[in-house]
Amino acid sequence: MTRAAPPDARSRGIALAEATLAGDRRALARLLTSVESRTPGAEAALRVLHPRAGGAHVIGVTGAPGAGKSTLVSAIVRELRARGRSAAVVAVDPSSPITGGAILGDRVRMQEHATDDGVFIRSMAARGHAGGLAATTDTAVTALDAAGFDVVIVETVGTGQSEVEVVATADTTVVLEAPEMGDEIQAIKAGLLEVADIVVVSKGDRPGAERTANLLRTMLATGTGPDEPLAVRRRPKRPEVLLTTGATGAGVAALVDALDRHRAAPGADGVTEARLKRAETLVWAIVMARVRDDIAKGESAAEARALMAAVAAHAIDPYAAADALLAARAAAGGAGEGSGS
Amino acid sequence: MTRAAPPDARSRGIALAEATLAGDRRALARLLTSVESRTPGAEAALRVLHPRAGGAHVIGVTGAPGAGKSTLVSAIVRELRARGRSAAVVAVDPSSPITGGAILGDRVRMQEHATDDGVFIRSMAARGHAGGLAATTDTAVTALDAAGFDVVIVETVGTGQSEVEVVATADTTVVLEAPEMGDEIQAIKAGLLEVADIVVVSKGDRPGAERTANLLRTMLATGTGPDEPLAVRRRPKRPEVLLTTGATGAGVAALVDALDRHRAAPGADGVTEARLKRAETLVWAIVMARVRDDIAKGESAAEARALMAAVAAHAIDPYAAADALLAARAAAGGAGEGSGS
Repeated sequence: MTRAAPPDARSRGIALAEATLAGDRRALARLLTSVESRTPGAEAALRVLHPRAGGAHVIGVTGAPGAGKSTLVSAIVRELRARGRSAAVVAVDPSSPITGGAILGDRVRMQEHATDDGVFIRSMAARGHAGGLAATTDTAVTALDAAGFDVVIVETVGTGQSEVEVVATADTTVVLEAPEMGDEIQAIKAGLLEVADIVVVSKGDRPGAERTANLLRTMLATGTGPDEPLAVRRRPKRPEVLLTTGATGAGVAALVDALDRHRAAPGADGVTEARLKRAETLVWAIVMARVRDDIAKGESAAEARALMAAVAAHAIDPYAAADALLAARAAAGGAGEGSGS
Repeated sequence: MTRAAPPDARSRGIALAEATLAGDRRALARLLTSVESRTPGAEAALRVLHPRAGGAHVIGVTGAPGAGKSTLVSAIVRELRARGRSAAVVAVDPSSPITGGAILGDRVRMQEHATDDGVFIRSMAARGHAGGLAATTDTAVTALDAAGFDVVIVETVGTGQSEVEVVATADTTVVLEAPEMGDEIQAIKAGLLEVADIVVVSKGDRPGAERTANLLRTMLATGTGPDEPLAVRRRPKRPEVLLTTGATGAGVAALVDALDRHRAAPGADGVTEARLKRAETLVWAIVMARVRDDIAKGESAAEARALMAAVAAHAIDPYAAADALLAARAAAGGAGEGSGS
């Protein structure tokens, strides 16, 4: 049983999930809207879809603004299609839903795939879900995975904690760096190299691209940046550094080969560290939503509001307020806890 | 009683809090380290400090990378000191602790205040606390507020969901924009204007600064950007747009006047929406930490690990796992729930 959803929302969610599994792309689009806006039916849908997911190769693509993420993602999708594989893209839009003009412009480039049923592209807004960006994105990935796409690409700008978390738990994380004139590597400033499985220097036809690639190779080999030690996450294998030119497609086939090699590494299709981390993000987000709903929508809602105001007025401390809320929830019997299956 | 901390950690936390209240700056620095690394004594310290906080004017400063945040913050601090007021700065460092070279370089500019007891500057790392950046920063602000600083400035880069959340709940939020040649306003792309109480165009001596300020004024007045509608949070008063030149200090006195006016607005020193939001962030983060600790450190820890692995293997869905964890916690009696005061 779905805990909070009314029966009709639950039925609608299950119907959307079943249509999605049957290959209905409009149902998939509606399901993702439901996930993004957290409507009551989303849970019922995801409970149907989760056991059917796990087959897709989840690829994260991140980099500083202007590194060329959209162009590269479009080129990867083109190469995957040429190899007969289907691909879905979740582009996490860092600007607000209303003012996201620049990003929407980028999406226009993807219109070449608009009539191809083997490609699905979706922008998701990053704002408005305090701490929940990773959970919302992971849920969308589950839906696209269950819908049968061979590859699911998650694209985020690599300039915020939440945004980097989203791609860090992909099966394979690609960090993009545009060639620079100086020794400045944007991906270092943002701490992105630490999450990279593959590093790509974009705009490979520009002067300086080879130099940037070599600088990155040296840094990754020695574990030092231009000025100081580099925190590269310990991993069995050092990230490869590749050059691509998104506009011409040069280097993209080699990148897709590298993605396949990373995916085919021993153990990479089982319960990897990244997949465990993704599961944990989802489960803890649901636990928290359950507890918040029990408190904020249950009998203790008025008490909760009063406690928050008392903390804001510095009349009580936040730990005392948290304990009072948990005690009220426990006294109320956890609002149906454990009735979930 | 502090729930999880051993008695000696609790005593150390209380001692740090008392020394902080007595004006001991080294104790304050150690306390902030304790908050940042979430050592067991931090809770005991904060329980002492929270009721003593609430007097400071909390100012958030954000903007795109390169907008000139550090220079402006340093200039504001100088002006506040000239007016006889003390100031603390929390700079949320978006790069990893190890690779934060550029940001540490910025901090060097603040060394002019190094021997001034009325100024306290602290960098905090943004990574490693999934979803907890706002809560950690708010806790640090509480400590600095209780320590008696007249103004606490929180500085973050405005390019990530977590980072913007941090400054959005300040009493007064300043959004910084560097003058551009074209019609591109970085703060719009990042959705920052929506959280602004005051908009500052930095580098006011550069060509184009007046033009950028006028463009911003028009946009804020009409609610439209160059290309499309602008989502400006409904507020009684439209944000002022000011010009400053951090290097020379031009415009900084007028900015501090504007900050004071915003703070002096009717109701701005009571339980405002921003202060309520800050309290909620803190309380929910503590509730979640309590629930996670009960599950992850209690008798159900092994069960939790098995459930996460089953979700990662797509053998069960994450909602079923969440319900099982909550049921196990309820069965264990919530691990001392309600014993907190």
